[in-house]
Amino acid sequence: MKSGQLSVSSKRNMELIDITDDIKSLLTPAAVGTGLIHLYNPHTTAGLTINEGADPAVREDIIAGLSAFIPLHLPFKHAEGNSPAHLMASLIGSSLTLLVEDDRLVLGQWQRVFFCEFDGPRNRHILWRLATTL
Amino acid sequence: MKSGQLSVSSKRNMELIDITDDIKSLLTPAAVGTGLIHLYNPHTTAGLTINEGADPAVREDIIAGLSAFIPLHLPFKHAEGNSPAHLMASLIGSSLTLLVEDDRLVLGQWQRVFFCEFDGPRNRHILWRLATTL
Amino acid sequence: MKSGQLSVSSKRNMELIDITDDIKSLLTPAAVGTGLIHLYNPHTTAGLTINEGADPAVREDIIAGLSAFIPLHLPFKHAEGNSPAHLMASLIGSSLTLLVEDDRLVLGQWQRVFFCEFDGPRNRHILWRLATTL
Repeated sequence: MKSGQLSVSSKRNMELIDITDDIKSLLTPAAVGTGLIHLYNPHTTAGLTINEGADPAVREDIIAGLSAFIPLHLPFKHAEGNSPAHLMASLIGSSLTLLVEDDRLVLGQWQRVFFCEFDGPRNRHILWRLATTL
Repeated sequence: MKSGQLSVSSKRNMELIDITDDIKSLLTPAAVGTGLIHLYNPHTTAGLTINEGADPAVREDIIAGLSAFIPLHLPFKHAEGNSPAHLMASLIGSSLTLLVEDDRLVLGQWQRVFFCEFDGPRNRHILWRLATTL
Repeated sequence: MKSGQLSVSSKRNMELIDITDDIKSLLTPAAVGTGLIHLYNPHTTAGLTINEGADPAVREDIIAGLSAFIPLHLPFKHAEGNSPAHLMASLIGSSLTLLVEDDRLVLGQWQRVFFCEFDGPRNRHILWRLATTL
């Protein structure tokens, strides 16, 4: 399989969910060798980011920081009431391109890959695809 | 054609312009089949993002939200007076990589692709290029 | 060489460092012709962005703007005290995909590529890899 999707279930309204092991586990059977893996989030109130995974407090602080500066109670026009989540989605971004070397994900020492839920809890999924490199 | 550019004209100082149909219309003649399309914005006071397109209020709320938290009247040093637009450009990002399957753009149910004007109105353009995948 | 790494040394706590010439200088020997170059930052308190390089004031204003809206003194849980830098890293993003044409980097007229230090001074590095296109 050179492309596919991963399921992610969020339990809270906002949370960063570590999906690094899920990505690693699809690389070995894919046997891409050296290349890139592209992750794509098809949801408009969620995102994908890379950040520190060693201390779980970092992902909580990221949520706390976003919640502190994003205006949560403007007179927004979108009737669903989740405009702040849409704004966070565009700030964090919908996709990631990661390096793969010898079937292993290349990450910095403290880096992990996170699915960012901004309007949960919900059942979500992420699309992935491998790309060749020179 | 495996690469090219799209023109976008903004009418307001800040606005999100839906360019999804423009991207879709270049995929059929390109006949990439399955791969990735990379979009690149060469302007420093604009960006590219993916968000909800069904309700036009969402894109207005994103502009309203950005305008509420980005400091608009700091004693900025850049004499052109558009430093907030430069900051928004770096927060939203200059490029997008999107999945293509059977010559069709892969987007989530509510997702559309937007050119983000932060210092308009101006005539802008976006570069695109198709990339192979495994 | 179709992949490698660049060293970057920051001198201040927060700064944008222009790495455009470093990227240009690796493209000629790589002789990729036409394709994409992917830049990856493996650090969790730094990022990569594209913005105006002609006026050095722009990069200073971006730092000033981030420092003005990012909450710097919340009761963060991460004991290292650099949670704002982690948040900035996720907002700015960890990677960039750039167009290459005839061994030259494709950038807009005013664009330059910047390494963003949010928790310096430190010795940092960036990974790069070339990718084929159609």
